[in-house]
Order: sequence, then structure tokens, then C-alpha cells
Amino acid sequence: MDHLLSMKQLSKPDISGLLKRAGELKAGAPPALNRGYTVSNLFFEPSTRTKTSFEMAERKLGLSTLPFEAGFSSSLKGETLYDTVKTLEAIGLDALVIRHPDDRYYDGLAGRTSVSLINGGDGSGQHPTQSLLDLFTMQEEFGALEGLKVTIAGDVAHSRVAKSDRDALELFGADVRYLCPAEWRGDFDAADDWEDVLGDSDVIMLLRVQHERHGGGADFSHEAYHERYGLTEERAARMKKGAVIMHPAPVNRGVEIADSLVEDPRSRIFRQVENGVYIRMAVLESILKGRD
Amino acid sequence: MDHLLSMKQLSKPDISGLLKRAGELKAGAPPALNRGYTVSNLFFEPSTRTKTSFEMAERKLGLSTLPFEAGFSSSLKGETLYDTVKTLEAIGLDALVIRHPDDRYYDGLAGRTSVSLINGGDGSGQHPTQSLLDLFTMQEEFGALEGLKVTIAGDVAHSRVAKSDRDALELFGADVRYLCPAEWRGDFDAADDWEDVLGDSDVIMLLRVQHERHGGGADFSHEAYHERYGLTEERAARMKKGAVIMHPAPVNRGVEIADSLVEDPRSRIFRQVENGVYIRMAVLESILKGRD
Amino acid sequence: MDHLLSMKQLSKPDISGLLKRAGELKAGAPPALNRGYTVSNLFFEPSTRTKTSFEMAERKLGLSTLPFEAGFSSSLKGETLYDTVKTLEAIGLDALVIRHPDDRYYDGLAGRTSVSLINGGDGSGQHPTQSLLDLFTMQEEFGALEGLKVTIAGDVAHSRVAKSDRDALELFGADVRYLCPAEWRGDFDAADDWEDVLGDSDVIMLLRVQHERHGGGADFSHEAYHERYGLTEERAARMKKGAVIMHPAPVNRGVEIADSLVEDPRSRIFRQVENGVYIRMAVLESILKGRD
Repeated sequence: MDHLLSMKQLSKPDISGLLKRAGELKAGAPPALNRGYTVSNLFFEPSTRTKTSFEMAERKLGLSTLPFEAGFSSSLKGETLYDTVKTLEAIGLDALVIRHPDDRYYDGLAGRTSVSLINGGDGSGQHPTQSLLDLFTMQEEFGALEGLKVTIAGDVAHSRVAKSDRDALELFGADVRYLCPAEWRGDFDAADDWEDVLGDSDVIMLLRVQHERHGGGADFSHEAYHERYGLTEERAARMKKGAVIMHPAPVNRGVEIADSLVEDPRSRIFRQVENGVYIRMAVLESILKGRD
Repeated sequence: MDHLLSMKQLSKPDISGLLKRAGELKAGAPPALNRGYTVSNLFFEPSTRTKTSFEMAERKLGLSTLPFEAGFSSSLKGETLYDTVKTLEAIGLDALVIRHPDDRYYDGLAGRTSVSLINGGDGSGQHPTQSLLDLFTMQEEFGALEGLKVTIAGDVAHSRVAKSDRDALELFGADVRYLCPAEWRGDFDAADDWEDVLGDSDVIMLLRVQHERHGGGADFSHEAYHERYGLTEERAARMKKGAVIMHPAPVNRGVEIADSLVEDPRSRIFRQVENGVYIRMAVLESILKGRD
Repeated sequence: MDHLLSMKQLSKPDISGLLKRAGELKAGAPPALNRGYTVSNLFFEPSTRTKTSFEMAERKLGLSTLPFEAGFSSSLKGETLYDTVKTLEAIGLDALVIRHPDDRYYDGLAGRTSVSLINGGDGSGQHPTQSLLDLFTMQEEFGALEGLKVTIAGDVAHSRVAKSDRDALELFGADVRYLCPAEWRGDFDAADDWEDVLGDSDVIMLLRVQHERHGGGADFSHEAYHERYGLTEERAARMKKGAVIMHPAPVNRGVEIADSLVEDPRSRIFRQVENGVYIRMAVLESILKGRD
């Protein structure tokens, strides 16, 4: 694997291999890199958990991470992403993790640079390491993904998490369902009523209501959203026995999920964050090993 | 010590132990940590010296410091400080240094996270590592704190330095006096005239006039403040023999202190900065050792 | 060498020594530093390549680099650059790389601090490490600098690159010519027509049109500039055999240089970036060795 840009590029054995390796690393296996590599994390959108998770994964692998401040870079002088990447290639970087607001920002980069690229989220496109950590967390919980009933609730049309997870979960034979208002449905076949999915879901994954995208309209009420599409305490009481709650975070407490459920015993939200470090170690290790 | 949030939590032996250890580290003693730890410095207010001082202390202790850009984090998406801290806990951080504009931002964090917290300044509340370095610098100068006459001049009501220093210096039997305009007095018993305190002070500590807080009013004149409440050259000429000048910095030259006095032989302003590194090493070491 | 502030301070043997050492480092020679040093990169203007290049050079030399965010520092509270530098000296920094919008920001710093200073670009003044990497790239290409015909095209009056390169190239006996509109000429004796310089130039160096400075006027057209002063494909076809294209970057594709020429076989633009790392290693090594 030269780059990791989208879950669509990964076969079932590719994914299984990464999940297995992340499990070994979580169990304490040492990293398998022969030398130090130098990487940088180019985040053109704000991030705490994905960026810090990559930083931690890089430290644990013994990599050298060069800082990059998108808000104080030559991008401000009009430099294209392509020229920025070629510049960092010339400086000697081995791999770049990139988050960017544009869908498929990586078209025109991969194949034209010798730097390895890892997609940390592209616009409303893909977020492959988030998807891998979601799969890892589900597999850790249930042993296998096949036949698992997973409900993803929220703005699926604009969610790179929903898209990445759909691609991967369907490959593994999970039964993925969606729940959202009609205007957020996009090309997803989504239910509009919790009663259709609540009782038999093994995993209920809430997506963040994106204030910057949704909160502007005068007709949008967080209370109304919570009542109709959020995971309320009342609904949580009717979840299937053994079912778990997931969320890619950051969370809007009281909007897509009741405040009290974020740290409920059934919540795996912070477990997802913890697992993300091992998934990113596995991805970086796999890509960097391929450079020798 | 699990966390360092306020000088009020420290006993006299606690403080003495930290000052002693800082002295050993300044004299070249090696750090006493058995393993590497990973920390991050979360500064939600601008800072040069406190943040860089912690960064240097962390390097000297052999710690791994993950970057955190408050202005480019998920805080922008509305994530609460609590959720940010829990996320960094899940990612595997051992300790967080936090500076935040809210007084007592740490209420509701300590006791609910396994990450160790070090307060790098909370609003108009406390700034414990600054207070410890102030004490260290005075003790280095005078041998003991008991009976020392210390005058703190400036906006004591809103100063976390004044509050932290008051708590600690009184514990050690120093005689602390305050000087400021009536409207900045708060619950401090402050003089209004240099003549009441100038002649017998061993330490004269000036506080920064906070432009962002004080400079806005049309009736506020830096010249008038300097004349009445600043340490002028004329006043400095009448300081007690052996007395020293301190300031937590950044300094407004010509406002709370005459420009020429910042690097006067009696000034300990840059000595305070130097000592801050050893104090922060001692604090980090003490807290991290407690995690094993 | 205590500081590197301007090309004017360097003798011909100084420069030759740095170029030679950069060549050795590029060929794989190990760094010659006896101990670790701690440095910081203070960039008060946006930068990708210069800042990342210094960061990479510092890693390769085994230095410890403390982060500094100009946009989140005490500069925002009105702290002077002098006080910031003295603070970082007190914290224990060995060297500072500084980029600042003010011409000769370093006057009043050098000689008043024990920290070593490296100028990463001052306003419209000097950019010595860029100049050194330009010389290195030309020498690598042509063997020697003497007699080389170099044309620098663009806003030479405001370009720190043009000024630094002029000083150094003339010292080595190169024949440096300039091309630009009359209003950007400053004290340079510049041609106004490509025909005067195109046919016999060994090096054609384009300078970035600075949108923030030039693009504002309604009468400024990127197309017109490209036609008259840019390196068009048509002009490139008439370049001397063996001649090369250089640019300090970031590049405005289609303005000062045709898009297709940036990665033309004759372009050394990304080679310049690559070489910059070794030049900065040589500069840092030379300055830090002088501290022992």
C-alpha cells in the first residue's frame, strides 16, 4: 500500500490485516520498522482527536514528526496543495497525513509524488482511519462483523464517516442501516423513524450535528432534533441487550446523544479514541515498510 | 500529588520540597523518572514564557510532548474542555498543562480523569508554577522567606500571580503588602502611596498593566499610571539596600516599570524566567513519579 | 560566526566553507556537533518551505526544537521582540531562527543577547540562507560561480532574495542582471526587456509576484505581467543551451512563470528546496560549534 486515501481501495484481506496488526500493537507488540522516518500532519481543518491520535501513533512508532501549521503556511500566499506536497517531498518527508475541506483533494497528488499520503479526512468524502477504528472497535466487541446490525444516525449525506463505514462494513457482510431527516439522506436508503431500527441494532452510531453546516437555519432546533433523531435516555432504555453506542466525536451533548449516555457503560466513544492510536500505528507502519 | 491546580492545595513541606528539588535540578542533578511519559500543553490564552518554559522543562526531563493548537482544535466545533481532556486521556496522555481564560476551569475535571493536570494559569484565579518560581527566586536571593517584606504593585484584584503569591508567602511568614489604585484592590488590603512601602521592601514586584483589560478607557493614561504607581527611576533610587525588583512579565516598559530598570543590576526579572524551568521540572517530576 | 544576519557579513572564504560543508552533508557526512542544542524557529510571517527546511535540518543535526507560535505568543500582549529574545535566552535556548516583517529587525538584538541568531528573512532586507542555497544550486550545476550570467526577474526592489543574491554573486564574480517594470527597480540597474538578457543567461531566476503587495491595484493584470515579464513557454524555448530556471518559491503558476515550466527538465526549483536543508544544516552546525 503506497497511500491510504479511501476505504474503497482496500480489499477484505487488506482490512483484516490492518485490524489484526492493530490488535497486536494494542497487546504490546513492538513496531516493526527498520529505521526512522520523517512525517508531517497537514490539517487544513481544525482537529483535536485525529491529529493528536496520529501524533501519538507516530511517537509510539519512533517517527520524527515535523510541525505544520496550515493557518500560518504558504497556503496563505496562494500556494497550491500540489506545490506544498512537492515542496515537502523535496525537503525529504516520507509520509504526509492530510485533512482538507475539499472532497478528493488527493486527486492529482497520488501518482505525482513519491511521498506517501494518508487521508485524515477529505471534505464530505472519506475518513479511512476513522472507519478502520470503528471496525476494530466493533470486532473487539462482537468478535466478528458479519451479520452485525449497525445503525448510523445523522447527516449521512455529508458524513465522510458514514461513507467510509458503509463501504467497509458492507464488504464484511454487516447489515448497515441509516436514520436521518429526508434532506440529509443523499444516496443513502435511510429510515426516518427510530422504531424501524432501535430494537435489533447491535451498534448505534450517532453522527455529530455540524453546527457550521446545519445550525444556521432559524428552523433548526437542537431540542427538536434530539427528540426525533437523537439517542435519548428513553430510547437507550429500549436498546437491544448487549448493544453498544458509538460516535466519531466531537460530541454535541444533548443534541445527537443525551448528555448522560456519553459515558454510559454501553458507550464505546472513548474506546474508539483509544483504538484509533493503534489503527493509525498499523496504517503508518504498513505504508512506511513499503518504502524500503 | 496527583494534580497541581492551586497554591492553596500545597502545605509548607510540599512547597519546601519542590523548591529544594528545583535547586538540585538547577545544580545539575539528573531527572529521577523511570520511564518516558507523554504530555501536552493546552494553552487557550497566548503565552511565550510559561509555555516555552514548560516545553523546555519537558525536554530536559526526557518527556514526549504532543503539540496542541487551541486555535485549531475541536474547541472551535464546540467541544467542551471536559471532552477534550477525556479524549486526550483515551489517546494515552499522562499529564496536561492547561492555561485557560476561565477561573477554576479545572472544577469538574480533577477527580473525573486519570490524566494529571497542571494549572498553567486560570483566568484571574491561580498560577501556581509562577508562584513557586517567585518563591524560589526570593529564597535564592535572601536565603529564607520568613520576615521578608514583599510589595506587589498593580492590578492585584485580577492577578492570578498576586493571589498565588499571597497564599504561599503568608504560609512562609513573609510580610506581603500591596499597592494599587482603589478600583483594582478587590479583597486585598492595598496601600495607595509608594511612600508607605518603598523604603523597607526587600522585594518590589510589579504586575503587568493588562492593556486588554485596563487600557481601553479614555481616562487611563500610561504616563499617569507610571508616575503614580509605577517603579520610576526616582523611586528605584530610594529602594532599600539589597532589595530586588521582580515582575512576572511580559513587561510594559515605561508603564509599571521604567524602561531602564528592566535590566538594572537589582532586577531579577530574567532570573525568574530562568528559574521557572527548574520549578516546572520539579513539579512535572513529582507528579509523574506519583503515577507509577 | 556568532550570528547569520546578512550576506554582507560573510567573506568569500566564509561562503565557500559553508557551501563545501553543505556538499559534504548532502553526500552523507555525519553532523559534527558534540552535544545536543536547543533551538526555536520564530516565524512572524507565514512560511512553509523555509520553516520546514529549518525544522528538518535541526532534526538531522540531532537538535531539540522548541515550538513557537507567533500568532499565539506574548507578542499579542505587546511584548517587544527584544524582550521575547531575552526571555528565550533565559529559558536556555542556544539559537533562534527568526523571520520578521520588519527590515533589520535584528538591529538592537545581536550584541545584546547570548543566543545565536539566524535570519530567516527580514522584511525587504536579507534572506541569507536562501541566498546560500541559490549559490549552492548554481555551483552544483555549473561547477563555479565566476563569470556565470544570472538574470533575476521580478520585484527586485522589495525582494530580500534579490538583495542577498546580488551581494553574494557579485563577490564571486558572477554577472548578475535584473529585469522588472520601472516601478520595482529601486536601486537596481534593471532591464525592461527580456531580449536584453534572455539569450545569454545561464540562470533565469523568477521572483514571486507578491499578491499582498502588488495584486491590489485595479491596473495590475497577471496576464499582462506574464506576457511582458514572465517566463513564458515561448521565451523558455529560446533559453541558452544548458541554462536553468530557478525560483525561491512559492510560485504563482502562470504569472511570473508558465505553469508547464515549473517541473520542466531545466527547472531547479525543487532542487533548490532539497539543497536548502543541507545549507541550513551547515549554517546551524557552524554557529552552534562556535558556542563551545
